[in-house]
Amino acid sequence: MASQRSRVGIGLIGLGVVGSGVARILQEKAQVYARQVGCPLCLTRILVRDPTKDRGPGIDKSLLTTDASAILDDPAVDIVIEVMGGESPAHDYVRRALSAGKYVVTANKEVIAKHGAELRSLAEEKGVDILYEASVGGGIPIIAPLKRDLLANDIEAISAIINGTTNYILTCMSREGRDFGEALGQAQALGYAEPDPANDVEGIDAAYKLAILASLAFHTRLHPDDVYREGITRLSSRDFRYASELGYVIKLLALARKLDGGLQVRVHPTLLAREEELAKVDGVLNAVQVEGDLLGRVLFQGRGAGALPTASAVVADVLDAALRVVGASPRQPGPAGSAAGGPLTVRPMSDLRTRYYMRMSVADRPGVLGQIARVLGDHDISIASVIQKEADERAQTAEIVIMTHEAQEANVRNAFREMEQLPVVADIGNLLRVEG
Amino acid sequence: MASQRSRVGIGLIGLGVVGSGVARILQEKAQVYARQVGCPLCLTRILVRDPTKDRGPGIDKSLLTTDASAILDDPAVDIVIEVMGGESPAHDYVRRALSAGKYVVTANKEVIAKHGAELRSLAEEKGVDILYEASVGGGIPIIAPLKRDLLANDIEAISAIINGTTNYILTCMSREGRDFGEALGQAQALGYAEPDPANDVEGIDAAYKLAILASLAFHTRLHPDDVYREGITRLSSRDFRYASELGYVIKLLALARKLDGGLQVRVHPTLLAREEELAKVDGVLNAVQVEGDLLGRVLFQGRGAGALPTASAVVADVLDAALRVVGASPRQPGPAGSAAGGPLTVRPMSDLRTRYYMRMSVADRPGVLGQIARVLGDHDISIASVIQKEADERAQTAEIVIMTHEAQEANVRNAFREMEQLPVVADIGNLLRVEG
Repeated sequence: MASQRSRVGIGLIGLGVVGSGVARILQEKAQVYARQVGCPLCLTRILVRDPTKDRGPGIDKSLLTTDASAILDDPAVDIVIEVMGGESPAHDYVRRALSAGKYVVTANKEVIAKHGAELRSLAEEKGVDILYEASVGGGIPIIAPLKRDLLANDIEAISAIINGTTNYILTCMSREGRDFGEALGQAQALGYAEPDPANDVEGIDAAYKLAILASLAFHTRLHPDDVYREGITRLSSRDFRYASELGYVIKLLALARKLDGGLQVRVHPTLLAREEELAKVDGVLNAVQVEGDLLGRVLFQGRGAGALPTASAVVADVLDAALRVVGASPRQPGPAGSAAGGPLTVRPMSDLRTRYYMRMSVADRPGVLGQIARVLGDHDISIASVIQKEADERAQTAEIVIMTHEAQEANVRNAFREMEQLPVVADIGNLLRVEG
Repeated sequence: MASQRSRVGIGLIGLGVVGSGVARILQEKAQVYARQVGCPLCLTRILVRDPTKDRGPGIDKSLLTTDASAILDDPAVDIVIEVMGGESPAHDYVRRALSAGKYVVTANKEVIAKHGAELRSLAEEKGVDILYEASVGGGIPIIAPLKRDLLANDIEAISAIINGTTNYILTCMSREGRDFGEALGQAQALGYAEPDPANDVEGIDAAYKLAILASLAFHTRLHPDDVYREGITRLSSRDFRYASELGYVIKLLALARKLDGGLQVRVHPTLLAREEELAKVDGVLNAVQVEGDLLGRVLFQGRGAGALPTASAVVADVLDAALRVVGASPRQPGPAGSAAGGPLTVRPMSDLRTRYYMRMSVADRPGVLGQIARVLGDHDISIASVIQKEADERAQTAEIVIMTHEAQEANVRNAFREMEQLPVVADIGNLLRVEG
């Protein structure tokens, strides 16, 4: 399956936060990716608005161009990455790239939501593909799994929290009792909301993403205008209090559901029963729940935005496209394909460093905790907290639970053996490791 | 890309719960799958131990055989599905199928965990593939996304709850304060635990699955014996109480983590801080958290077992293999590829039936609630619960929150318009839809 190609040419359109991330990753991981694909991925040109702007280190200035045709008309470019955002001129660039028989990888939810069907047909006609994993859910793999599971399942419903800005604001209103304006201000101060937040708080961004997911899941062509939409601006902190009294949280839910041969598609603030999986998705997290006739309910959750997560999805699509350009399957994982250049060895358990929980029955008399603490101290184990429980009067024992600071497994085991020998220790109940 | 093949031949090894599900799905969805792949998938033979056993309706008895070579040596079989479980003779069958140049789809975690590397090499040598999405996490798509994201990311850690039986038992011990024996008995009574539960409660099943995930994620060859393993049998209900006092839950966690050029791989009961995502995964659910250098933390969650979810993963792999056999890409989703045979129309919002939350300010005097209830009743909307809050004395208003039973959106909107006209209603604060 080794390719005869000497390289795969890549053109990048847009060098904002995501574009810079993609450019840097393609450079930093060039060797790993070349091994996976079978030949180097070569970034040939980057389209920018202002070529004089400082781009920081890691961006080769000689690649910058302000002329889109330097990418779109260059036969050496096999894959075009579009991360400039907005409908125009991105839509035109994507169409020209596909028409020229190039693969397109895009993070542009507006273009895909409004023109996805047309662009997919064009790609099919030209024998290429348009990949848009990054357009929904940032780094969360959702488009590719959905395409694959779609083949086996009939999808019944998609319920999603797909706008991190509004989820952050709602979480803040719910936890801290703040009003919408205050919570929005806090999100803006932290960079989670734009100075003009309408796209997020009015549910427009979520409606784009839902149109993309639902078109895919239900084999139909939904325009964002088909999505019923209400934003979160009218919510008051009192609604959160009342909802909570009734056993609910409030989320901006994006919902698409099959019903009597029709489809419900809507984005609006929703009271969600506290026990629901999506009710537990807080802060800037995104989550998409897919319900299929075979697979049941599956939840995909992660950070829905940010330069690196989004770049991760873009690069995964680029590698997928590159493998199809060279006509190869991805290398089977195994020592030969290791990114780190060699297999990792398994570390012995005695090397582990973590926190520990210890429960034991001890004699119910003064000085016992001191003896135990001394043994632990001798083995370099320090105590974080202790619970001492009421004595069992008949047996004249008490129960002690100790939580340690981080310690080494080998030391903990040695300390345990020593403690078992202490006359004041009646029984060691349990030793458990702690995470998180 | 249309195929010249007249059919793809499939042999099924094993007709237990999962195998029967797969056979039935391949039959029920035959037309949809034929359209996706470009030619029919034809189930040619099913290997069973006892051909006289009653298999219920939907299984063509003439396909049953007790002779493995009727599948493994038949050139008309392109794809072998192995769902018999256990190491032997399944391992031998899988090896023979790959040697004969057939694709293999398996749900067998023991075979993949112990012999995955050897089988993948053999598949690569023969120009085919071995697919095992169903071996970990039932219907949750985890193997395929991991393979794809692996290409872009360096994976740092995998933390997972991948045994539904133990998670059910631990959730039961935690919520109901039961001891291990009682909780196990309850799980057995509900069919969530085997009569001989050792494989689950000793962590053996979880160790198989972790070896599979970690071998893939870290490009290495882990044997299940490389996984440090402790079961859950020594936990007492007191440990759950103490953990809770300290802010933790207890989960059987499967962990693989890169550390100083080495790898930690372990399955053991773990105290997990209550706020952690995995701490919220309860009952028979499975969840896998993947941490990559680019994508950050992503969580995949769903039912990790059961006939249909597991069959869903098997069939997704079968379709993937079938597309490769015929040398085609999956059909782009779109009206032409619709499973239901036509695009779904978007239903108007007025058709929606759901529950509603209404908040309003009303005059603080007797009989007001009666007037509101009458308007709602006139529009076929019945009240599920009411919260009436302290009056605003200066404005002489009180706040009422009403939760309705399921009602129709059109009726709710009409009722709202009418209520706004009531002299006793000062202000309608919010109307929100309810889910879950």
